[in-house]
Amino acid sequence: MHITVWNEFRHEKKNPKVIKVYPDGIHKVIADGLHEHGLTDVGTATLDEPEHGLTDEVLAKTDVLIWWGHMAHDEVKDEIVAKVHQRVLEGMGLIVLHSGHFSKIFKRLMGTTCNLKWREAGEKERFWVMNPAHPIADGLNDHFELEHEEMYGEPFGIPEPDSLVFVSWFAGGDVFRSGCCYYRGQGKVFYFRPGHETFPTYYNKDVRHVLANAVNWAAPTHGPKIPVVNAKVPLEPLPPYED
Amino acid sequence: MHITVWNEFRHEKKNPKVIKVYPDGIHKVIADGLHEHGLTDVGTATLDEPEHGLTDEVLAKTDVLIWWGHMAHDEVKDEIVAKVHQRVLEGMGLIVLHSGHFSKIFKRLMGTTCNLKWREAGEKERFWVMNPAHPIADGLNDHFELEHEEMYGEPFGIPEPDSLVFVSWFAGGDVFRSGCCYYRGQGKVFYFRPGHETFPTYYNKDVRHVLANAVNWAAPTHGPKIPVVNAKVPLEPLPPYED
Amino acid sequence: MHITVWNEFRHEKKNPKVIKVYPDGIHKVIADGLHEHGLTDVGTATLDEPEHGLTDEVLAKTDVLIWWGHMAHDEVKDEIVAKVHQRVLEGMGLIVLHSGHFSKIFKRLMGTTCNLKWREAGEKERFWVMNPAHPIADGLNDHFELEHEEMYGEPFGIPEPDSLVFVSWFAGGDVFRSGCCYYRGQGKVFYFRPGHETFPTYYNKDVRHVLANAVNWAAPTHGPKIPVVNAKVPLEPLPPYED
Amino acid sequence: MHITVWNEFRHEKKNPKVIKVYPDGIHKVIADGLHEHGLTDVGTATLDEPEHGLTDEVLAKTDVLIWWGHMAHDEVKDEIVAKVHQRVLEGMGLIVLHSGHFSKIFKRLMGTTCNLKWREAGEKERFWVMNPAHPIADGLNDHFELEHEEMYGEPFGIPEPDSLVFVSWFAGGDVFRSGCCYYRGQGKVFYFRPGHETFPTYYNKDVRHVLANAVNWAAPTHGPKIPVVNAKVPLEPLPPYED
Repeated sequence: MHITVWNEFRHEKKNPKVIKVYPDGIHKVIADGLHEHGLTDVGTATLDEPEHGLTDEVLAKTDVLIWWGHMAHDEVKDEIVAKVHQRVLEGMGLIVLHSGHFSKIFKRLMGTTCNLKWREAGEKERFWVMNPAHPIADGLNDHFELEHEEMYGEPFGIPEPDSLVFVSWFAGGDVFRSGCCYYRGQGKVFYFRPGHETFPTYYNKDVRHVLANAVNWAAPTHGPKIPVVNAKVPLEPLPPYED
Repeated sequence: MHITVWNEFRHEKKNPKVIKVYPDGIHKVIADGLHEHGLTDVGTATLDEPEHGLTDEVLAKTDVLIWWGHMAHDEVKDEIVAKVHQRVLEGMGLIVLHSGHFSKIFKRLMGTTCNLKWREAGEKERFWVMNPAHPIADGLNDHFELEHEEMYGEPFGIPEPDSLVFVSWFAGGDVFRSGCCYYRGQGKVFYFRPGHETFPTYYNKDVRHVLANAVNWAAPTHGPKIPVVNAKVPLEPLPPYED
Repeated sequence: MHITVWNEFRHEKKNPKVIKVYPDGIHKVIADGLHEHGLTDVGTATLDEPEHGLTDEVLAKTDVLIWWGHMAHDEVKDEIVAKVHQRVLEGMGLIVLHSGHFSKIFKRLMGTTCNLKWREAGEKERFWVMNPAHPIADGLNDHFELEHEEMYGEPFGIPEPDSLVFVSWFAGGDVFRSGCCYYRGQGKVFYFRPGHETFPTYYNKDVRHVLANAVNWAAPTHGPKIPVVNAKVPLEPLPPYED
Repeated sequence: MHITVWNEFRHEKKNPKVIKVYPDGIHKVIADGLHEHGLTDVGTATLDEPEHGLTDEVLAKTDVLIWWGHMAHDEVKDEIVAKVHQRVLEGMGLIVLHSGHFSKIFKRLMGTTCNLKWREAGEKERFWVMNPAHPIADGLNDHFELEHEEMYGEPFGIPEPDSLVFVSWFAGGDVFRSGCCYYRGQGKVFYFRPGHETFPTYYNKDVRHVLANAVNWAAPTHGPKIPVVNAKVPLEPLPPYED
């Protein structure tokens, strides 16, 4: 299984607070976390590379794409978004993180605004498991927590998830559907909330555990294609029909 | 409740077979069907009117929009689609019919290809009720049928419906999820399969019954908006946090 | 529409704290709340009446049944539970409140343990709307709250709801799926969390608003029956088959 | 992974037509099919064994239980059903086949009647894939078929599936949700329609492929337990509360 971690990689070049936490970029730390879980075939790609690092070759070999973006969603070229979209619908897994809720690719896949509330108060976030039978909850306790995170609050402008795995509690009084699974075409999409750039979220062992589970869940299966087909000949004989 | 029936209204101007069935346009016959069910505040709008008949004023007063399109999806202006999209997410009901599965508005709301198989063999279509508790199945028997329809076949490239009300059986050997409900933002969307332009589908009493039920189901409710909000102040006091 | 409010009505006879809040029983206060919303055809029934007040006659005329029970779930006779179960599957709406999660009827309809965490600390509960398009969220803001309630926490041992309308935030660190919709047979079921007997929850205007919305949503529609039928004769001719 | 194939094993002792197709019992042929797919740790259990072959020891070591029953559902002891139920809610996968829709265990897990139509006309059944992204559709084409099967028809008295993988087309004019996934507690349940005792269904390569996929999907994961817990101490400090 080949995983590509895509990162906008801008905050980590300008913001001293972010540089301190992620000196080599968020993508590097996410990839390290996957390595810990035996997922070793991991590449990275970033916004400022040619084609955002998502060449046809890279997309073709990617089984699961992880997406982190925030301040430069608009700079992601529409043609690259279209290719990622097509690959997801053809089976490539997609894991969208945190502020990626406003990425072009996530909004296109959801069909909704993906709006939400937010608050940067470094408050506690506690993730509660809603669906203990789901593979993404494998090996978890009933909850885990992050001492400091940005808050995201409901209502969150998404379709009802095909499975809701986590809901977050925030100390400041909000809740959020923080782990959402979707089937789209032949592909699987998981939105996972945490990961504000100023907090060491992607070093956290539970977050890494969830990411590894999510990659395994989102890995491509090989169901039938969904083509546009003029099925001229019926599979069964039809009675005569006068047009 | 104000309903607007939108129709591309092109087939009915050129194709003698269609003109014979729908001399005043599909929209006229759909509107007649709604009248029969006591839904009397019904307007129509068509592609070739200015702004496709969907001015800001019309959209603002429309509670439920019905959409029939086929050969000219690409001629629907992106800016009008964007307005309809926004109105749906703000609560306006949307009922997408038949070949409208490939309309810009439906594809944008679904986020998927909306691909499918099709066959024009005038074969029998039988609609089976999957969810007898759903308001759209109110007053129906376990199935109803249309003697001659175009076939649509699976796999259909849509998200799993939030409720699946009908599955169609086709004489030629196919099945199709022919009545699909979705919540999107503050709005409700219903995809209803039948209605090929060469068949008198919208004169059928069961089809009319379903359309009336669907309009009533999709009528706006007034839940909370889903804005982007910087919720600067937490609702509950937070412990001190050193950034 | 005829509504029956069923209450165990035991706490209100022995516990001075409860008597103070609900001197005439929880059912009386729930019924009062429905009256406020124009739902005036409301009867009540309680555990210690003959057949728990749920005679065949009462069940036959009830469109929506509201259920509050806690300390005496085991005293509800299996034959009455079986009748209520059958009526729900035939279309009667059912609204299960608070500790009713452990009622025989709810567990039978869910097929799961319906286990949960709880804590009586009189803490704040804040209800967040998850599905702003759902009729049960009609007229609500993005949240409402109760100053003091018993806490229920996840994981909650229920099937994933067909629509999740509310998630509660609790001051002590928990979340809970507090408004859950289910289609079951021809009927609709809504689980609504709040209503511990020592708190004046059913006097609260938002809670009453939700209950009225829920009754309207759960009202019977008249979809097809789901019988056991030997459909000896196929609807379409079959090719010869040698057994 | 240890799989147990449970079979009523009565038809195969009395009905010459069934004996001809399944001389050593349906369970034997199902187990053979799993072997072909590399699932080799497979035991069997049948109704007439002590404790129906489902001793505590067998249940404790079973990861996925496959269930075929028909004429003797009522002879399955309630205490065994209760144990199977508990094991499913604790994580054991369950695959219910064909007439097992009326088994005590399936009805208990669904909470509904599980009623349906049926017809023994040896007609063609064609399985269409609805969710090409689901692991149970892995490696399949858009449809597969069985030349002769018993028909099951809608409406089927089940909860809406958490994912609908297959819908069957029947030559005689019916459709059926023939592959239905459910999460229940920590466990996963898959209902798979085909397998009438007089047809060689479980020798079919596509059916065997689906069964192997289903076993892998239903295999236990280790999410959190869903206990009844008095969580006396809040995770977060609460303001003082005067009872």
